[in-house]
Amino acid sequence: MMHAHSFQPPPRTLMGPGPADVHPRVSAALARPTIGHLDPAFGGMMEELKDLLRYAFRTQNALTMPVSAPGSAGMETCFVNLVDPGDKVIVCINGVFGHRMRENVIRAGGEAVVVEGDWGRAMDPHKVEDALKANPDARILAFVHAETSTGASSDAETLVELAHRHDCLTIVDAVTSLAGSPLEVDAWGIDAVYSGSQKCLSCTPGLSPVSFSERALEKVTARSEPVRSWFLDLNLVLGYWKGDGKRSYHHTAPVNALYGLHESLVMLADEGIEQSWARHRRNHLALRAGLEQLGLELVVPEDERLPQLNAVAVPGGVDEAAVRARLLQDYNLEIGAGLGALAGKVWRIGLMGYSSRADNILLCLGALGSILSESGHRADVGAALAAAQASLRD
Amino acid sequence: MMHAHSFQPPPRTLMGPGPADVHPRVSAALARPTIGHLDPAFGGMMEELKDLLRYAFRTQNALTMPVSAPGSAGMETCFVNLVDPGDKVIVCINGVFGHRMRENVIRAGGEAVVVEGDWGRAMDPHKVEDALKANPDARILAFVHAETSTGASSDAETLVELAHRHDCLTIVDAVTSLAGSPLEVDAWGIDAVYSGSQKCLSCTPGLSPVSFSERALEKVTARSEPVRSWFLDLNLVLGYWKGDGKRSYHHTAPVNALYGLHESLVMLADEGIEQSWARHRRNHLALRAGLEQLGLELVVPEDERLPQLNAVAVPGGVDEAAVRARLLQDYNLEIGAGLGALAGKVWRIGLMGYSSRADNILLCLGALGSILSESGHRADVGAALAAAQASLRD
Repeated sequence: MMHAHSFQPPPRTLMGPGPADVHPRVSAALARPTIGHLDPAFGGMMEELKDLLRYAFRTQNALTMPVSAPGSAGMETCFVNLVDPGDKVIVCINGVFGHRMRENVIRAGGEAVVVEGDWGRAMDPHKVEDALKANPDARILAFVHAETSTGASSDAETLVELAHRHDCLTIVDAVTSLAGSPLEVDAWGIDAVYSGSQKCLSCTPGLSPVSFSERALEKVTARSEPVRSWFLDLNLVLGYWKGDGKRSYHHTAPVNALYGLHESLVMLADEGIEQSWARHRRNHLALRAGLEQLGLELVVPEDERLPQLNAVAVPGGVDEAAVRARLLQDYNLEIGAGLGALAGKVWRIGLMGYSSRADNILLCLGALGSILSESGHRADVGAALAAAQASLRD
Repeated sequence: MMHAHSFQPPPRTLMGPGPADVHPRVSAALARPTIGHLDPAFGGMMEELKDLLRYAFRTQNALTMPVSAPGSAGMETCFVNLVDPGDKVIVCINGVFGHRMRENVIRAGGEAVVVEGDWGRAMDPHKVEDALKANPDARILAFVHAETSTGASSDAETLVELAHRHDCLTIVDAVTSLAGSPLEVDAWGIDAVYSGSQKCLSCTPGLSPVSFSERALEKVTARSEPVRSWFLDLNLVLGYWKGDGKRSYHHTAPVNALYGLHESLVMLADEGIEQSWARHRRNHLALRAGLEQLGLELVVPEDERLPQLNAVAVPGGVDEAAVRARLLQDYNLEIGAGLGALAGKVWRIGLMGYSSRADNILLCLGALGSILSESGHRADVGAALAAAQASLRD
């Protein structure tokens, strides 16, 4: 015999690197009755979902859809479909997710040429250009638009232009940027891009929106060897998602999770994508104003900062893990730890999607300031809250 | 600008091959507040989830966990981790999912040796034994326990014993069998098994429980080449799921979907796994009794039938697609079409999980009988309902 009880999660405010707070409308959508993945009514919802994703990605790409698994599977969808065994791929690494891209190239049978960037900085386009020149046989340039591990934003438009000038396709990680800061898939000419549901879309984790240009899709359909993943092979997945009225079974779609993503995208369309970018920026400036008053510094230079993910340097003498544990225990507030080269050195404060709100900013500044004050760090909590409020009023 | 409305799914009764009806307790669990995938409270839920899955699989395997994607990804997890490039794998094919196993072997770089079975029948152990004898260098035997495309159940215990006698590991598809009909992972000595959340567990689609024996795990950790999928590489995934208090980030788990699976497994433990098997069998017998009165025949021989998935021969002169369309339109009732060799020849009527209920049986018999009567097929609906009710009372 086995006995267990229903799980009742504690209430939390999610201000880490994701998942972000899920909007109540999304939670309600998740609980709607499940219908069949081949039901005509579900097919109609799928078509809307693709249109809504095109709106969010700013693209007309026909191949725009959610992969039925988390962002890591979206990354793998791009690499496993576009990298033929033996292909040389230039991979930019300025954080954890660049490393993961390199792993993906290797697993797909490709050869990875690494361009090392600095953690907490944008990729340097000159370095990338040098690598493109030094590797005229490279087929793909891969880079992270918004590095979730550091909070740095790279200049995707410039990097894509360089890649195209050297006859490379581009794979771009937009897990954290989608809906949080400007991302222009068509205007910048991005060939393949993936994101996640659980960041600036205010949805639950588990789905990965992707978009492929015609040129990228041509490479997928013209492969010499079958894609190394059956589950992620777009030649097969598109039989289900193509939407010409002859939807064929590939895998069983995560029906309720897709209800949730649809709802989050309806909300995004109602707000407007540019308004969503502006809200993320406005709230970032308010958080920053407050953090300054607490004597805390952001590690990424101002013009390379992501508004939705703020990497804050841990002050000397402060036990970073203990502070996070107290935030969680006393205030039900989650912020993120550092990863990789920044482990132990930063906190990552997310202002993503539904988490990007004035009340969250005040809670975070108040709680963090109070804990730091108690532990001897000079932090003027009142001044921090006032600065944030003043910034929000601007 | 882009405008869309919240999606309101039509109410449906799901009696196809899955997803099955989702229990209201599972729907409620899905809508609970999202917390972080590294939150200590979530870690506690994950440990319970593993125990509950061990209970459902009847195993003590330490590596028992849900893959963060649908059943097809659970299948791929087994193959991509266990098949080293060049490995010879004997694959039994008696339906759609055997074909898919063969594809998985090829994508993983293995060599597939196919044993052809009959669609709608169990695999013949003699044929399997012949293949094992003819291929002494084979490393793995793969077969489908419960063929969702035909409703046939193979004798997993015997096939696993044969495989072990010939020094092969076993990969077993239990997508449709888990919780619906006897499955004994430890007693039968299965090495790797995968299932799905959306069938006899009454949960939403999107997750794939898997379990690996120690011996199977040894092969994964001793691989000569890295696993071809980064997302599904168990050497990495276990860093998140191992549960020794040092959970490390791999991918962002689908938090709310896991709430749902946990809830469905709590309900299964409350009912009791053997009671769940018995319920599926009792309801199958009632459906069968009613179908007989409608003049409809099951295509799988009695002792090879799955109680949870009933493949019914479409009577001559009846337009099978038109009948399904009317069931959906007039009664909001979904049943499944035939797949592969059985396309156009059968309906697949599922009695899985929360769908396996007396009211669903009467609805299905009544609706199907009425439509068939109208279209000229001789079907005594009253007798069918009476026979089902009598069977349920037995």
